[in-house]
Amino acid sequence: MGDPAGIGPEICLRLLSDPQVLKRCVPVVFGDVGVLVRVARQCRLLRPNRVVTGGQGLLDLPGSSPAVVDQGGLEAFRIRPGQVQASCGRAAFRYLEAATARTLNGEFAALATGPINKQALQAGGIPFSGHTDYLAATTGTSSVYMMLASDELRVSMVTGHIGVDQVSRELTTGRVLEAIRLTRDAVENLRGETPRLAVSGLNPHAGEGGLFGSGEEERVIRPAVEAARREGMEVDGPLPADTLFVPSVRSRYQAVVTMYHDQGHVPFKMISFDRGIHMTLGLPLVRTSVAHGTAFDIAWTGRANPQSLIQAVLWAGRLAERKRAVHERTAARRAG
Amino acid sequence: MGDPAGIGPEICLRLLSDPQVLKRCVPVVFGDVGVLVRVARQCRLLRPNRVVTGGQGLLDLPGSSPAVVDQGGLEAFRIRPGQVQASCGRAAFRYLEAATARTLNGEFAALATGPINKQALQAGGIPFSGHTDYLAATTGTSSVYMMLASDELRVSMVTGHIGVDQVSRELTTGRVLEAIRLTRDAVENLRGETPRLAVSGLNPHAGEGGLFGSGEEERVIRPAVEAARREGMEVDGPLPADTLFVPSVRSRYQAVVTMYHDQGHVPFKMISFDRGIHMTLGLPLVRTSVAHGTAFDIAWTGRANPQSLIQAVLWAGRLAERKRAVHERTAARRAG
Repeated sequence: MGDPAGIGPEICLRLLSDPQVLKRCVPVVFGDVGVLVRVARQCRLLRPNRVVTGGQGLLDLPGSSPAVVDQGGLEAFRIRPGQVQASCGRAAFRYLEAATARTLNGEFAALATGPINKQALQAGGIPFSGHTDYLAATTGTSSVYMMLASDELRVSMVTGHIGVDQVSRELTTGRVLEAIRLTRDAVENLRGETPRLAVSGLNPHAGEGGLFGSGEEERVIRPAVEAARREGMEVDGPLPADTLFVPSVRSRYQAVVTMYHDQGHVPFKMISFDRGIHMTLGLPLVRTSVAHGTAFDIAWTGRANPQSLIQAVLWAGRLAERKRAVHERTAARRAG
Repeated sequence: MGDPAGIGPEICLRLLSDPQVLKRCVPVVFGDVGVLVRVARQCRLLRPNRVVTGGQGLLDLPGSSPAVVDQGGLEAFRIRPGQVQASCGRAAFRYLEAATARTLNGEFAALATGPINKQALQAGGIPFSGHTDYLAATTGTSSVYMMLASDELRVSMVTGHIGVDQVSRELTTGRVLEAIRLTRDAVENLRGETPRLAVSGLNPHAGEGGLFGSGEEERVIRPAVEAARREGMEVDGPLPADTLFVPSVRSRYQAVVTMYHDQGHVPFKMISFDRGIHMTLGLPLVRTSVAHGTAFDIAWTGRANPQSLIQAVLWAGRLAERKRAVHERTAARRAG
């Protein structure tokens, strides 16, 4: 559900009654029933019609219809919508912990996360700056990669939320290669085809033969591209970022592996703004996320657009199905 | 004319007979008549019909019709189109030197530069990596700024052709403020209106309150934006780059000041690819440039598109006119 004081509750209510979602999966919201009922009243939306308490396992959910798992611990009437509150930061984190644990133990096929507020987490004493940090730590994953996906463009990033002055230091051939592999896997799962990938350079004109930058293109990126090719992948790069996203060039590729946050986010948002989803590559569970924040300015007003959450859930379901299908084929091949 | 072995000669021939150009200004090409005649024959284009030798001053050009200033020193029949040649690097540099000197001494209103090849310059022993380097050095200008302009977007960059790992070090409040001022002036000249400007941050989410990066947003960029506001400019920033170029946000501004090469070039090329022009801000002369390279793969084939050069020349003319008008108004005000 994300931060209770943001648009999370409203978009979750809309999700629970979305016909497209209900046709494709069984959404279960980890959140707070008191908040959801209050928001439903205020926004004139349907109240959740099935609620279980946080202690109950999936087996306690009779049948397979949408539900809310009430994690409790919040006094809904005290929440001030649209404000940073320590209690809300802690609550959002409890929903995340519970949903993650129960996805990791196999009760759920995939995890989609709603919008949280970093300052509220901090105020609540949560030692993580966001979902991805927590998921990496709790699953013991050392390297995770952000990917943004829409119908128009798929783009992943080798480095994450770090300063531009740190990017060069964090780039290694191993990380670039891992990002290429995981991007290939994700696009295969998303689109059911072996993708042709582009890998961007770091510096202006991809370094122009070592003229600009510290030789990251030749020293770090090219060896990763060559290793990926030896593994049989169709990969081009390092390519200059400024021509790579021109329509006639990007249309040759199913995805682009970029080196840093804005190198991928700027073109993605220009093309797909809030239609896309975020996913995290490298985790042992399928995880997608809304592509927007808590939108405190319109929290609890009935004006929130649930499309990003709906897409995040639909794609989480699709990724989980494909992953299972691949897994079953592999198992059958081994058994046969 | 740029590098004789690239598409420069062909697009110059097309420029010299372009009706739009001829209506607005008197184009004079600094280049080599032997090469132009050879390319004209090969591409079935009109030969230049007025040629003067490099030694002659503007007073020696009777009337005001388009012309070629033949700098000589090349044996046209020896040139291999589409190849890096030391003689061509040296020749391109001679054209640049002559055109620059005669623009600085007032014979011409503005300078538009054709495409050159950095390797050819190097092979020719020219100690500059490009036009802009040379122009800054020869005019004693310490800080110059690139700007890209098209009907859809105007974007300038505080830092130039340097590695991503150097950007943070090169950013100073003085440079950001100077870039804001020069961008304001250029847009005023281009569009005849006082612009509203956006200034980007450097790091993801513009640093998210100092969370990412080394505090460049608060320490360097914000003080420059505030100083610009105190000077009466309409400026917003530092803004996160990834939402800044979304259509609904960028449409609020007449230009964007970005912090590094790709931060401006990626969105510009996505929107305007080769329709735009480059200009150099901070120089004591009006200088525009084609937005493409030498295109060695199609040199001397008749397939080059002259639009970027035509736009560069038209805009150079417009900028020079507006600059003169502003200058005359200021002089009249002082005299009155």
